[in-house]
Amino acid sequence: MLLNSPSVERLVEAFRRLPGVGKKTAERYAMQLLGAPPELAFSLADSVTRARNAVVMCRVCRDLGESDPCEICSDPRRNRSIVCVVEHPTAAMAIEKGGGYRGLYHVLHGVLNPLDNIGPMELRIDTLLDRIGGDSGVAEVILATNTTAEGEATALYLSRQISARGVKVSRIAHGVPMGGGLEYADEMTLNHALEGRTPL
Amino acid sequence: MLLNSPSVERLVEAFRRLPGVGKKTAERYAMQLLGAPPELAFSLADSVTRARNAVVMCRVCRDLGESDPCEICSDPRRNRSIVCVVEHPTAAMAIEKGGGYRGLYHVLHGVLNPLDNIGPMELRIDTLLDRIGGDSGVAEVILATNTTAEGEATALYLSRQISARGVKVSRIAHGVPMGGGLEYADEMTLNHALEGRTPL
Repeated sequence: MLLNSPSVERLVEAFRRLPGVGKKTAERYAMQLLGAPPELAFSLADSVTRARNAVVMCRVCRDLGESDPCEICSDPRRNRSIVCVVEHPTAAMAIEKGGGYRGLYHVLHGVLNPLDNIGPMELRIDTLLDRIGGDSGVAEVILATNTTAEGEATALYLSRQISARGVKVSRIAHGVPMGGGLEYADEMTLNHALEGRTPL
Repeated sequence: MLLNSPSVERLVEAFRRLPGVGKKTAERYAMQLLGAPPELAFSLADSVTRARNAVVMCRVCRDLGESDPCEICSDPRRNRSIVCVVEHPTAAMAIEKGGGYRGLYHVLHGVLNPLDNIGPMELRIDTLLDRIGGDSGVAEVILATNTTAEGEATALYLSRQISARGVKVSRIAHGVPMGGGLEYADEMTLNHALEGRTPL
C-alpha cells in the first residue's frame, strides 16, 4: 500500500510543479512510473538530468540552446540588424519553423504582469536594451509578444523604451490566419484584419 | 534554439510515456524544466529515482509498497480469511482510506481485455488462485474490479475460477452513491440500485 509513503508523496509534489498538473494527474503519473518496469522511471529521470545539463541560456538573446552564444547569435549568415522579441523559446522555435525570418531573436521568458510582480527587472529588459542602440548595428526591433492583454502591454512598454533609443520598432501583424475561412475568425481578429488592410 | 536538440527530443519522448500525455503537453513540461532554475529538473529526476528504488511489489498480494511482503499482508490484525480483488493499487488505496475493510487485498494490475491481448496469464491470475483454496484459510473473495465492461467480464471470469475451488465469491454492491441526489445518478446505476434493494 502506497498510502503515506514519503518517497511517493515527494514524487507527486515534484510532478505538481509541471505546468497544469494537479494532484490527481500527478498521482496518476507517479502510479504509472511505480507500477511499470523500473526502466520507465529510470529513463525518465535520466532524460530529465541529461537534457537539463545539456541546455544553457544564450548570454546574448537569452534563448535556450546547447551552446552559449547560441547557434543563431553566432551564425554569420543571419541578419544582425534586426531583432525579434518573443515571450518564450517556443515562440522563437515556431517562427524559426516558418523559415521566413533570417534576423536574430530576443527571449523575454515572460510578459510584464504587475499582478504577479513581473516588472522590467524580472524580464531582464536591460539585456535587450543593451543589445540595441549605440553602435550595435540593430536597425529594427520586431515585437512578437503574444496578442494577449499582457503581451500587448509589454509590446507597448518596449516600443517606448526602444523608440527612445532611436531604433525603429514594429509589431507583428494581427489578422486572419492563412487557409482559414473568415467565418471561423473571432471578431477582434476580423476588426484588426480590416484596420490593417494592405493596398494591392 | 532547442529545435532538433537530441536531448530535448529524448526528454519529450520520455514524458509522452506518462498516461494521457501527448506531444504538445510533453513539450510544455520539457520547456518548463529547461527554462526554470536547474534545481526544478534535478529534484524531479531525483524524486523519480528515489521513489522507484523505494517501491517494490508484494509477492503475496502484488500491491505496491515499501516492503515485501507488504505491511497489510504482514499485519497480524488483518482478517486473513477475506481477500478483496482490485484492478490497481489506487483502488486498494481508495478502499483503505474508507477505513471499513479489515481483510487482505489482491491487485491484478489490469483487467482481462482480449483486444489488447490481456489474458489470465498477463494478469498473473495464477498468483491469486494459489493464495485461495486448499488450506489457505481464505473463506471469501470480494471482487472489486471497476464497473466497466472489462471489469465486469474479469469479475465473471474470476468468480467461476474461484467458485470451482469451493471458495465463496461476492461482488461489491452497485448502487446510488451516498450523499447524492437520485436525479444525478445515471440510468444503469439506478436500475442496479433498484434490483439490489435490501429489506429493512
